[in-house]
Amino acid sequence: MATVRLLSDSEAEAIPAVKAVFDDIRATRKSDFVNNFWRGLANDPVTLKRTWESLKQVMTGETALPPVVQEMIYIAVSTANGCSYCIHSHTAAAKAKGMTEAEHAELLAVIGLAAQTNHLVTAMQLPVDPAFLVES
Amino acid sequence: MATVRLLSDSEAEAIPAVKAVFDDIRATRKSDFVNNFWRGLANDPVTLKRTWESLKQVMTGETALPPVVQEMIYIAVSTANGCSYCIHSHTAAAKAKGMTEAEHAELLAVIGLAAQTNHLVTAMQLPVDPAFLVES
Amino acid sequence: MATVRLLSDSEAEAIPAVKAVFDDIRATRKSDFVNNFWRGLANDPVTLKRTWESLKQVMTGETALPPVVQEMIYIAVSTANGCSYCIHSHTAAAKAKGMTEAEHAELLAVIGLAAQTNHLVTAMQLPVDPAFLVES
Amino acid sequence: MATVRLLSDSEAEAIPAVKAVFDDIRATRKSDFVNNFWRGLANDPVTLKRTWESLKQVMTGETALPPVVQEMIYIAVSTANGCSYCIHSHTAAAKAKGMTEAEHAELLAVIGLAAQTNHLVTAMQLPVDPAFLVES
Amino acid sequence: MATVRLLSDSEAEAIPAVKAVFDDIRATRKSDFVNNFWRGLANDPVTLKRTWESLKQVMTGETALPPVVQEMIYIAVSTANGCSYCIHSHTAAAKAKGMTEAEHAELLAVIGLAAQTNHLVTAMQLPVDPAFLVES
Amino acid sequence: MATVRLLSDSEAEAIPAVKAVFDDIRATRKSDFVNNFWRGLANDPVTLKRTWESLKQVMTGETALPPVVQEMIYIAVSTANGCSYCIHSHTAAAKAKGMTEAEHAELLAVIGLAAQTNHLVTAMQLPVDPAFLVES
Repeated sequence: MATVRLLSDSEAEAIPAVKAVFDDIRATRKSDFVNNFWRGLANDPVTLKRTWESLKQVMTGETALPPVVQEMIYIAVSTANGCSYCIHSHTAAAKAKGMTEAEHAELLAVIGLAAQTNHLVTAMQLPVDPAFLVES
Repeated sequence: MATVRLLSDSEAEAIPAVKAVFDDIRATRKSDFVNNFWRGLANDPVTLKRTWESLKQVMTGETALPPVVQEMIYIAVSTANGCSYCIHSHTAAAKAKGMTEAEHAELLAVIGLAAQTNHLVTAMQLPVDPAFLVES
Repeated sequence: MATVRLLSDSEAEAIPAVKAVFDDIRATRKSDFVNNFWRGLANDPVTLKRTWESLKQVMTGETALPPVVQEMIYIAVSTANGCSYCIHSHTAAAKAKGMTEAEHAELLAVIGLAAQTNHLVTAMQLPVDPAFLVES
Repeated sequence: MATVRLLSDSEAEAIPAVKAVFDDIRATRKSDFVNNFWRGLANDPVTLKRTWESLKQVMTGETALPPVVQEMIYIAVSTANGCSYCIHSHTAAAKAKGMTEAEHAELLAVIGLAAQTNHLVTAMQLPVDPAFLVES
Repeated sequence: MATVRLLSDSEAEAIPAVKAVFDDIRATRKSDFVNNFWRGLANDPVTLKRTWESLKQVMTGETALPPVVQEMIYIAVSTANGCSYCIHSHTAAAKAKGMTEAEHAELLAVIGLAAQTNHLVTAMQLPVDPAFLVES
Repeated sequence: MATVRLLSDSEAEAIPAVKAVFDDIRATRKSDFVNNFWRGLANDPVTLKRTWESLKQVMTGETALPPVVQEMIYIAVSTANGCSYCIHSHTAAAKAKGMTEAEHAELLAVIGLAAQTNHLVTAMQLPVDPAFLVES
């Protein structure tokens, strides 16, 4: 049903460059589960490795933002971009990292409000207030 | 240059329903500054009031998420929706509420990564892993 | 500033296939004004002609929807797609075709609400109610 | 399958703030049917109430635009934002409010054309004609 | 499940304007298969004909770009617009027209990178370098 | 006017991690010109380096697709995502890499058509034909 094949564990094992990434995903996440995103990307070991290393760099280890906040930002972008798979996977991740029901509800409220004011602003074609353009 | 007129302070003063909202914006924000968003919406006092009260309800007072996190979520949605005015105004707001340069940089990194994986997932048309569909 | 050249009237006159479309635009709209959209498309006379004839077929003559309603739908799509030029040109067209200030205000209110509920629905990943799936 | 629970009627009955909104939805629409959108939002009674009251204010009672036109604008925005649930529910609503097959067909034609010209304009990065920037 | 009926072959045969387009699709593509896109559009023979003739003009016969490149551009736009049906149909078309697995993988990598840099640029609200604005 | 500072050459020189990337950009592109995208990203040397190395990996050296085709795909995504800066910079790049006027015109025509059919398909909520779902 996808436009690419999803590699099984045995197929992934057979390609050293894929196996190396899958092993690192499992070690980093301390879980045996490798989700479909990586199984689809595995058709292209170079993109698989680059994407995983980018995610690992930004989303793990020492981060400026709490991991649960990163996941909420991820949900916000995925919602505006309409990526169903991403909304499911990052909502699951946010919950696993401690997002409470109240935080989830507020996240949705903020996303909804932002979308509303984005569209109102765009339809009105408002000029940016000079106060917002101060050199940072 | 906008598709609606931006009401000046004297015009706003002259319409009681607009004046009431502008007064509340100023009192709530403890600032005399009323930005163009409200001056454009003021052409429709009913939408002005509804929009301000929605924002006030979600973004002020007791919130589940820290105000600076709400602003970062707002920036994320506004970026994905391509709203230039909104990105400027909410980046200014986030900085005013304490977003550090390191947090801003990480916010951008997460937004960029999310957009990349959103598009990769969509182009591959991946099925959602059953593990992400557990009843909440 | 555009990524293509905008053809002047004298340049347009010199290319018969472009001249024919510009003449028809002027005759159909009963106005000498040819806006930048057509001057940019004129670099490709085949796309110019196809696009004009499509617009003429859908938006002029006998239509199922009143012309002002067509323009409001156009504004709605252009807003969601973030096309600044299109919002300006179709808001001008809607006003010229009789859109009142109250209708404009309500159009914006509906666009804003729709965007808000679109994003809420997407973030919740709601299944479509069976009642909405009745065979038309 | 959703990222939030959909409240059943008995669950909704048990929360006074939710029951009050569901009762008003049923009374306003003169129908016992409460669709999934409200059942998902019911996890957050404050957002449920705010969203319902916003929709009720804009989309019911005295409106500047005919209800069927409001629904068509809703479909246009939902299409550009790619919200499948919203397209289904508002197409059903538009039909219930009298949208004919000819109007539906023309709505789709206008949406399609608008998307095409939106993308052409954006790819060409056209400057807005001064004639469209006249102060309203 | 669609918001319009999908016309069967016998229904299409019964409407001369639809039959003519279906016949031309089959003759042009040298295949008896008519996919759901045309069966849905067939509810509106005028839009069916206009859409088919536009596609035929741009995507068949003498083209400036190789057909497989046209299909890859189609996939890129469809991905950014989140059109699942379109991604499936044009990925199938691209493969049929010779897109290799390596090209498909690179197409996805470019789409992903473009989305990432699009969002980074938008979040930073960068001014266009004068060097990119040279009159073409 | 941007939401981040754009680093000048002397500022970039003073940060070794930034200088290293700018030097590599100049060496790889055989040009002294470093555009604003990199000057904005330079506020975050880690994201600067990751982004440059990703672009370098995908868009330079041995590629499966001709460089000019990669640029055209980039323009297609940037158009659908509404990134003005990106459309300007990648249109300039595509021209520099040999995109002819006829190819540019056809690129725009395909982007426009794709947007139109994307929106028509989405508004109709068409089910994917089984023929498009064959296991790859």
